[in-house]
Amino acid sequence: MARPPHPTEQSPVSARRGTNLPRLKNFNESVVLDSLRRAPDGLSRVELASTSGLSAQTVSNICRRLIDQGVILDEGTVVPSAAGVGGKRRTLLHLNPDAYFAIGVHLDPAVATVAILNVTGSVLAERRHPMHDVSEPDRVLADIARLVEELITNSGVPRDRILGLGVAAPGPIDLESGVIIDPPQLRGWGRVPVRERLAELTGLPVILDKDVTAAVIAERWAAGPAAADADTFVFFYIGTGSGMGLVVNDTVLRGVSGNAGEVGGLDASCTTRDLAEEGVRRGVLTGLTLPVSPTEAEDALAELVRIAHDGDAEARDIIDGWARRVGRGVAAAATLVDAPLIIFGGPAWTLLAERFLPIVRDIVDASPFVEKTRETVVTTSALGDAVGAIGAASLVLDTLLSVQPQSLVLQ
Amino acid sequence: MARPPHPTEQSPVSARRGTNLPRLKNFNESVVLDSLRRAPDGLSRVELASTSGLSAQTVSNICRRLIDQGVILDEGTVVPSAAGVGGKRRTLLHLNPDAYFAIGVHLDPAVATVAILNVTGSVLAERRHPMHDVSEPDRVLADIARLVEELITNSGVPRDRILGLGVAAPGPIDLESGVIIDPPQLRGWGRVPVRERLAELTGLPVILDKDVTAAVIAERWAAGPAAADADTFVFFYIGTGSGMGLVVNDTVLRGVSGNAGEVGGLDASCTTRDLAEEGVRRGVLTGLTLPVSPTEAEDALAELVRIAHDGDAEARDIIDGWARRVGRGVAAAATLVDAPLIIFGGPAWTLLAERFLPIVRDIVDASPFVEKTRETVVTTSALGDAVGAIGAASLVLDTLLSVQPQSLVLQ
Repeated sequence: MARPPHPTEQSPVSARRGTNLPRLKNFNESVVLDSLRRAPDGLSRVELASTSGLSAQTVSNICRRLIDQGVILDEGTVVPSAAGVGGKRRTLLHLNPDAYFAIGVHLDPAVATVAILNVTGSVLAERRHPMHDVSEPDRVLADIARLVEELITNSGVPRDRILGLGVAAPGPIDLESGVIIDPPQLRGWGRVPVRERLAELTGLPVILDKDVTAAVIAERWAAGPAAADADTFVFFYIGTGSGMGLVVNDTVLRGVSGNAGEVGGLDASCTTRDLAEEGVRRGVLTGLTLPVSPTEAEDALAELVRIAHDGDAEARDIIDGWARRVGRGVAAAATLVDAPLIIFGGPAWTLLAERFLPIVRDIVDASPFVEKTRETVVTTSALGDAVGAIGAASLVLDTLLSVQPQSLVLQ
Repeated sequence: MARPPHPTEQSPVSARRGTNLPRLKNFNESVVLDSLRRAPDGLSRVELASTSGLSAQTVSNICRRLIDQGVILDEGTVVPSAAGVGGKRRTLLHLNPDAYFAIGVHLDPAVATVAILNVTGSVLAERRHPMHDVSEPDRVLADIARLVEELITNSGVPRDRILGLGVAAPGPIDLESGVIIDPPQLRGWGRVPVRERLAELTGLPVILDKDVTAAVIAERWAAGPAAADADTFVFFYIGTGSGMGLVVNDTVLRGVSGNAGEVGGLDASCTTRDLAEEGVRRGVLTGLTLPVSPTEAEDALAELVRIAHDGDAEARDIIDGWARRVGRGVAAAATLVDAPLIIFGGPAWTLLAERFLPIVRDIVDASPFVEKTRETVVTTSALGDAVGAIGAASLVLDTLLSVQPQSLVLQ
């Protein structure tokens, strides 16, 4: 496989563009890679032809090319055929996990997290860096570039196999220009050209996207089969910011400017700081003054949750009130886009899940608008606190390797 | 162009299917047709190559085939080139408006509307049939089949050029099986296999979809350039039912079961009957008792609007209250999916627009969550009361003729 184009070279696609043979070939190669990625036990050429609908000849040609390039492995594993008659044998093919790598940065106002993933979505290494002072974008970006460099060196991954660097940031962003636009959680950032700066500092192609969108893409790449196979779901992210990621009919919704997922209009916004500040206002958390800073908020929320766990009615009331607000918001969104699966995650979720989950489930089950002909599942992401960084790296894999019919269309 | 496959032959597509040369050829043909459909003044082969990104040779081959089949017209119009130097001349090609036709039925509990469109989205004929008794599905469907037959006969359209029959119905529906599932507005309908029945009765391939989804597709096919070119918008439909149609990043969202657009969870549901019943409850509308039937509701709403127009404060308060609820709902949805355009339509909208529009616009403009970096436009559909039937016919055109990269993927 030719190295895929750099993400920054991609542009929005018009509806009236045609396609051609080279795009068709690239697409079918992606289909073979994607099938192998989803099959940890490997697939034979016959199975690949059957699942993809491609002819045996086409599959055979694609596999030969990919084996020559070291992207897929023909390990000589020979197994009897299902029928077992006539001594027919199949060779199983595997995706080479070391064929490509991607790096992700989660730019959170409290802590920057950097992770490196291989092409199968496994996390090889991860690094956290507390953000004591985020007021100077230049210094923050230089710190991140240094973290990325350390990660590459220590992981021993060959630089020419790294597809790129994904950055997940709180919105609003300008997706097209790769600029962060004065997010409320990053005071003093104005319009910072994050994509351009980090590309200069690291020498890697860079993709910038919203933290919530990154979390959704992480679900599809790194969270195991449940979400990877889900065609339509809602992801509710709770951390320094909060928001919803929407996947509908196999498409990640980014909206016209890349800022889909805003939940303020639904009255469902719920951040670490929202919870901590209500704890301070109602006298449950002492020793803190308003406003609570992003770095204080994380410890404050942990304390609030501990107090609630120990039985304090006021602390429980605070958390449960936010859970009801979020529950009504996700129920409304899931109904609006007709989604049968609601996944929660983000840095604050681990703390909140115990009290939030039963409340949200009750609201969703009781909603007269949730489709009664099927169950709506409410669950927790398998990815834990690092979902932002893993998602940022997944952005790179998703842009370059996922099977997007849109990629067939001429730019 | 070979006649496109019947809509009922289409099935959901898996993410791991490949593509092949015949699909590539069909897709490029659709691109040429779509470009010509959007260019009422015609396009030259050179322009087609430039807008589509296809080679001159490919465009030339496609055009020859389509001219031979009578789908596009080479009317011998010769115009000087833009440069006008060297006497170079271009032949303009046009889509033959009579190449294909589509019929749409809007199955509304108050009135059934049937329309026939040509392939450019123009309405050739339309017919309304009051639904005095909707309690017997078999009789209603037989009535509709008769209306369709009359429309075909009177319009003089050749039957073999009719691509199919689209049906827009109040939800919930089962998109895959073409069944209406006991909609609250059609008491006694249980599970009615509308697609199968109407296919038997008319001999045409039938597509069933939600009224709101049909209205969205009508915007993209028949409403002129504004919505046809909009990549991401929200359509709010008000009639016997109400709901939102969502188009995000050029994809019409149908959700996992075809029932996206439910606005009850947003507390923004607003039907003709909701307004009429509040008018009765608050004593503004006299001579009616609760519940108001679907056929009474239309006249009752017209009366309520007239009273408000004449200055009655109570009537104005009723209408304005619903406008605020709808305004908050569309603002939340437009923010959630990051849409810069909100279109209102449906049978009741013509009556409501005068009071609703300024109120909704104020709410959208004042929302702290609506993206401030760009204007969010709130407007009225150009299609009027027949948007349901036009949308139903557009479903057929959209399924068979629109440029959907997804159609490249092997079934």
